[in-house]
Amino acid sequence: MQPCDFVVFGAHGDLATRKLVPSLYQLDKAGLLEPDLRIVGVARREMALDEYLALARESLTTFMKEPVDAQVWERFAGRLRYVCLDLASHDQYSKLREIIDPVKRVMVNYCAVPPSIYGDICRGLAQAGLVTPQTRVVLEKPLGTDLASSKVINDAVAQFFKEEQVYRIDHYLGKETVLNLVALRFANSIFTTNWDNTTIDHVQITVAEEVGIEGRWGYFDKSGQLRDMVQNHLLQILSLVAMEPPVTLGSESIRNEKLKVLKALRPITKDNIEEKTVRGQYAAGFLKGGPVPGYHEEEAGNPRSFTETFVALRVDIDNWRWAGVPFYLRTGKRMTKKLSEVVIYFKRLPHNIFRESYKNLPSNKLIIRLQPNEGVEIEMLNKVPGIGSGVKLQRTTLDLSFSEAFESAHVADAYERLLLSALEGSQSLFIRRDEVEQAWTWIDSIQDAWRTSNDAPMPYPAGTWGPVASVALMARDGRAWDE
Amino acid sequence: MQPCDFVVFGAHGDLATRKLVPSLYQLDKAGLLEPDLRIVGVARREMALDEYLALARESLTTFMKEPVDAQVWERFAGRLRYVCLDLASHDQYSKLREIIDPVKRVMVNYCAVPPSIYGDICRGLAQAGLVTPQTRVVLEKPLGTDLASSKVINDAVAQFFKEEQVYRIDHYLGKETVLNLVALRFANSIFTTNWDNTTIDHVQITVAEEVGIEGRWGYFDKSGQLRDMVQNHLLQILSLVAMEPPVTLGSESIRNEKLKVLKALRPITKDNIEEKTVRGQYAAGFLKGGPVPGYHEEEAGNPRSFTETFVALRVDIDNWRWAGVPFYLRTGKRMTKKLSEVVIYFKRLPHNIFRESYKNLPSNKLIIRLQPNEGVEIEMLNKVPGIGSGVKLQRTTLDLSFSEAFESAHVADAYERLLLSALEGSQSLFIRRDEVEQAWTWIDSIQDAWRTSNDAPMPYPAGTWGPVASVALMARDGRAWDE
Repeated sequence: MQPCDFVVFGAHGDLATRKLVPSLYQLDKAGLLEPDLRIVGVARREMALDEYLALARESLTTFMKEPVDAQVWERFAGRLRYVCLDLASHDQYSKLREIIDPVKRVMVNYCAVPPSIYGDICRGLAQAGLVTPQTRVVLEKPLGTDLASSKVINDAVAQFFKEEQVYRIDHYLGKETVLNLVALRFANSIFTTNWDNTTIDHVQITVAEEVGIEGRWGYFDKSGQLRDMVQNHLLQILSLVAMEPPVTLGSESIRNEKLKVLKALRPITKDNIEEKTVRGQYAAGFLKGGPVPGYHEEEAGNPRSFTETFVALRVDIDNWRWAGVPFYLRTGKRMTKKLSEVVIYFKRLPHNIFRESYKNLPSNKLIIRLQPNEGVEIEMLNKVPGIGSGVKLQRTTLDLSFSEAFESAHVADAYERLLLSALEGSQSLFIRRDEVEQAWTWIDSIQDAWRTSNDAPMPYPAGTWGPVASVALMARDGRAWDE
Repeated sequence: MQPCDFVVFGAHGDLATRKLVPSLYQLDKAGLLEPDLRIVGVARREMALDEYLALARESLTTFMKEPVDAQVWERFAGRLRYVCLDLASHDQYSKLREIIDPVKRVMVNYCAVPPSIYGDICRGLAQAGLVTPQTRVVLEKPLGTDLASSKVINDAVAQFFKEEQVYRIDHYLGKETVLNLVALRFANSIFTTNWDNTTIDHVQITVAEEVGIEGRWGYFDKSGQLRDMVQNHLLQILSLVAMEPPVTLGSESIRNEKLKVLKALRPITKDNIEEKTVRGQYAAGFLKGGPVPGYHEEEAGNPRSFTETFVALRVDIDNWRWAGVPFYLRTGKRMTKKLSEVVIYFKRLPHNIFRESYKNLPSNKLIIRLQPNEGVEIEMLNKVPGIGSGVKLQRTTLDLSFSEAFESAHVADAYERLLLSALEGSQSLFIRRDEVEQAWTWIDSIQDAWRTSNDAPMPYPAGTWGPVASVALMARDGRAWDE
């Protein structure tokens, strides 16, 4: 790693205090930061360095599960700087130039602010002479709310940064188990020989949240679950499950293959929107033994909002590998429990010699649990131990729980991995512009179709798995969600 | 199940007291015996019923891990009868006819005596009018020491019993995990689509014993490990791993398929004996922290014996499924530990995108542990959790231990299952005559070739995995035994 300055725009924001500062501390603790790497907090508020140090310290004590180590803190605090500037005033960026030499050192700029300001930051940096070929900029989602608005954001950045300098974060790509998908798929012959439409029946991707809106009603209502979760996280997972083998593990190879998947997604339009999608919106219900309000009753809620908090999709991938293998996606808020998983359903056997036990043999499943309790499971059939006539079968699970299998004191958070990648200059875990735009193109078509239909989302009680229509979506194909 | 009389010839013998009586007790305890089923002990020694009951009771207390249940014992004891007769005197079998009606009841005759007496038993039963179409005879190994001698035994039995009345025991076919092989292979698409020479590299079957000769020198020295273990147990396991899907789970279907495998075994002759086989004989060594004598130094041992106590084989199956996929078999006494397992090595991946981690990716393995700790494992590659550049892989194991997965108070012994099958009249777990003879034909060719070469077996220290030549056998093919 080269000598580096890591600049956080929006140093007082939620993301910076919750995620960035604790993740940088963990990287420092693990010895993964260059000795003279500096961390520069930037925000509009006037603040002495001491105050910023106190703020950083507080974010550590608040958001880390472990106590702050005195020695690590001393080293970490020594890296911290604070610069007060108005992000919209391009001339103020010279304050950064005073302490940073972007030629001798790599400058990594993390935009932990709303996307509307990304352009200002890039222009300010450029005007202050801070953009050299080795300057990088890290962008957080949401990158727009549709293709057009995402282009505006990306264009504003592209005026000053080349694509190879831009790091678009989707924190799902920093998750251990998501990365393990690549290892599982391409390092194990039992899967490489079983990973196409001759052997796989369908794939399910579930990202279920327990939380509701958490005071973000205004933001969320303009977006909705499709844009907020499917456009990025779920489509990224889908791409990694479905992509062809990349030439190498390098960032361009992997992103080229992911893009090909996104391009092969069959469009959902007003002609097939009814059969391919389910929109839901949570009503009042019960979760963890207590009542919770419906979406409309949330603080600042609008009872006439049509914004979906749940979406289920049948996605078809029109390529040679996946022809005839649907991918079912569902994600929602206020679900029964927090659960993210990918389930690969292998095809049923063409013939059953165990009819005494099962009229139809259950199919084998590969379950990749993203959270909680990250791990891999294979569900298969075994003989039930016991004597007596006939072979009785039973579903059993071969299990690999990461936390049990790999005893490590600290399981790295997705942000730690992504920050380290950005510092190292590796783009493979970041989304390329063409991926973002291809995803938006596909999502926009669904949004358009929904707008045209003008139906309200189907209500579902908080604490359930979504509207019954989601069950029907699968049932029409003779399938069911993994429970 | 029909009303039944279970007759044990050789009631005082080792097999009867160690295995048969405890297994029958367990079946009774589990409620699997017909209420009026009777158990008739037969031996030459004069003995009152009370004495026989005391003997049976003693065998339960000595060879069961659990205490005798008073209520079960009362019921069990009520079933016991004792008949004294000289097995060689055919006219004495009328004593059995006095208490058994072979027309109204099924008579199951268990020959727990040396095979030389099987013919006498069958003739005696026939002369006493005890052989009806529903009379059965259960035969224990060894069924001869070669094809010719096995024919003599089988012919003697066949004079009085049709093949469908004959139950030849190989207790490995009663083992839970051996039966699970059939379930694993034919109920799981991830294996059915991965079970031939396109996906499997080779198969290893290991049956390692810790014990030595245990006072059976005289018997064992005439036989040797090839006849004593490979001809029956290892070839049976091999047949179940390699057979084509049977039409049904019925006994003829399964035995037809097993026979086809035995017929497809490529003969080992004096032309290829050197490259296909390794013979070993244990020398003095250390096991479990103490010294143990060599084979020649065992009680009643003969220092000039060439009998092998270890054998390793490379077996080729000349059929469409297994062309080019060797099966490596090894079995020995005085090995490092007691271990029986089947390991399926899947093919290496044709391409490796994880070269930073492994120059050559280890292949996936399916491990079926027969003993100890019966279970199934899949060894595969996962990403090592952790951040930093590159994807590091590590071998990890998805594990299904039967004893953990299936909580059952009593794990049935192989003999319980086999006795129940014989009582129920199901032959699928018993060896058909043509199987025995096909196996002997193949084994005889090896024995002939060894005899021709006249080399001594290679010595190996007790407590090791056999002669180094066994390692070389694999190494010549670029492979290694699973450790």
